[in-house]
Amino acid sequence: MASAKERFDLINDNLAEILNPELIESILAEGKNPRIYWGTATTGRPHTGYLVPAIKIAQLLKAGCEVVILLADIHAFLDSLKAPLELVENRVKYYEKVITSLLKAAGAPIEKLEFVLGSSYQKSPEYVMDLYKLASLTSEHDARKAGAEIVLDEEYLKCDGELGGMDQRKLFTAATEWLPKLGYRKRAHLVTPMVAGLKGAKMSSSDEASKIDLLDSAEDIAKKIRKAEAIPKVVENNGIIALVEFVLLPQAHLSGDGKFVVERREGEPLVYTDIAKVKEDYTNDVLTPQDLKPAVSKGLNAIMEPIQKEYAASTEWQEINAKAYPPPVVEKKVKKVKDKGSRFPGLNKEQELPVHPKE
Amino acid sequence: MASAKERFDLINDNLAEILNPELIESILAEGKNPRIYWGTATTGRPHTGYLVPAIKIAQLLKAGCEVVILLADIHAFLDSLKAPLELVENRVKYYEKVITSLLKAAGAPIEKLEFVLGSSYQKSPEYVMDLYKLASLTSEHDARKAGAEIVLDEEYLKCDGELGGMDQRKLFTAATEWLPKLGYRKRAHLVTPMVAGLKGAKMSSSDEASKIDLLDSAEDIAKKIRKAEAIPKVVENNGIIALVEFVLLPQAHLSGDGKFVVERREGEPLVYTDIAKVKEDYTNDVLTPQDLKPAVSKGLNAIMEPIQKEYAASTEWQEINAKAYPPPVVEKKVKKVKDKGSRFPGLNKEQELPVHPKE
Repeated sequence: MASAKERFDLINDNLAEILNPELIESILAEGKNPRIYWGTATTGRPHTGYLVPAIKIAQLLKAGCEVVILLADIHAFLDSLKAPLELVENRVKYYEKVITSLLKAAGAPIEKLEFVLGSSYQKSPEYVMDLYKLASLTSEHDARKAGAEIVLDEEYLKCDGELGGMDQRKLFTAATEWLPKLGYRKRAHLVTPMVAGLKGAKMSSSDEASKIDLLDSAEDIAKKIRKAEAIPKVVENNGIIALVEFVLLPQAHLSGDGKFVVERREGEPLVYTDIAKVKEDYTNDVLTPQDLKPAVSKGLNAIMEPIQKEYAASTEWQEINAKAYPPPVVEKKVKKVKDKGSRFPGLNKEQELPVHPKE
Repeated sequence: MASAKERFDLINDNLAEILNPELIESILAEGKNPRIYWGTATTGRPHTGYLVPAIKIAQLLKAGCEVVILLADIHAFLDSLKAPLELVENRVKYYEKVITSLLKAAGAPIEKLEFVLGSSYQKSPEYVMDLYKLASLTSEHDARKAGAEIVLDEEYLKCDGELGGMDQRKLFTAATEWLPKLGYRKRAHLVTPMVAGLKGAKMSSSDEASKIDLLDSAEDIAKKIRKAEAIPKVVENNGIIALVEFVLLPQAHLSGDGKFVVERREGEPLVYTDIAKVKEDYTNDVLTPQDLKPAVSKGLNAIMEPIQKEYAASTEWQEINAKAYPPPVVEKKVKKVKDKGSRFPGLNKEQELPVHPKE
């Protein structure tokens, strides 16, 4: 077993900050396992944006943490009130499948991984009373700004800390203030930095070009990486560099030899074990986007290949996928024929007398 | 049975306005009974401020409405988080007792009167899902401003309309907008005007001098009415005139001969059947505060006497009262004696060696 210091360092790796780190350190000092939760609303298809938290979660599992993944199905349902409940239920199953597969592919031990559905407790009388209490304790502005109800999940999931992005920082500081007012202990917060996407800005699930689906083929991955923005000599807001920093290098340390190798068109391969050297070489144009991109494609593919193999071998998962993300219905424009009377009222002529489609 | 028009007029009597009155009219036109709810948080002791909605409710019952009184125990609990739950439970019982007794005293038929506890449905999974939906549909500003969750009570209490004060008007207009977004029908709203209290401003439960407890004796009532502000010749913001307008005159029409009689120190008694004449005489100083006040005391006492008789005859109610509103604990200041050692650590000298109290 690693030392408390080593475990803490792995937990802290690549984070922007930890709020109240002493809460984690004291658990490690006792030789116990911190319980950390990460929440995601089960909406669109998980894409490469999920690699950053997934690798972080893999590190937490490797450091001996218990990890709870909250699949926020109620919030997913509310996000798209038009979506039928069945769709959300299948998306929940899809998320559980793909995240588990992804964590295994990243080399994480999954014995201490647990999935919890929001709906399993967010409608309970106890939770609801706490929700009412929280609403009465927090001021209008604070509560709305921060999404107050999410604070309660930390207590109800019995966690020691929560993992989330820098965009949630206000909520996290509010949580440390509000939970004690309800008689609950405050939690630590593991804050990941905002990470650049493939189009330079931060990852967005609504921009097709900036995301790679976790089930994309090796060819599709290579194509999207080739198209990705990567300004030579500039590491800031560079989504390709971000993939090396937050996914490929930590992944190499988790399950490989700790090396990220870039084959070059000319010269010896470049071998990296830390991001500082990658950034230095990139800034000096020793490491060019042209050489880096194929190495990143190869690295991503190495993570995603086992996921895709598992998917290909699982009829169950394929069926879930079909129900969770059905292909958009292409609506054929049918010229409305004026009903001049029929033996079957309400049935239009085309249905009654099928015409042969042009072949 | 009264005509639809007569029933509507009684429902509408003394209201500032009805929002969507056609919803009530159409039910009456079918010869059916509108179901109306009125909500109150079970906090402090009901006082004469409750007479105004009570008389209005008595009119609704007389007009053949079903009336649901929501005893908002969850909100009462949240209002005073320090109060033990048992206190709130006993206050709920007290409210039910005193409101029922008051409505009977006001001459209302109580067969169609129903009490519902907020906690009986506000923690149900269905209600909570609707609460989440509502939160996702309404904007930050609107929802907080209006107290969004109260909107749902209209649906869950299966009412056709809600009775409330002018201070709730914003919530009422929001409710007519929000309920249809959740797939529920909009409700009518019966809006009572803001009524002046005994100190000129609107009734306040936090100001002892401006309220009369429903269990106050005839002497206490007379004393508080004598002290009440009643500027001669000014009917605006005059709490004594308000009691005549919103309690005593409607009450006389409900269960008496429709007459409000003022004995005078000099001259014949003044007999009123409508508020316009009361106000006219008061403005002209024909009706003086000196003559009016004893008549108001007498009128209030006539309503409260049967309540007090019922209370005096009910050991159960008296026990509820003792538990719901225990007398404040008078803390005797005990000089802390420095502990110089004792056979019972933690026990101070005074406890160990009781001194004889001075008699």
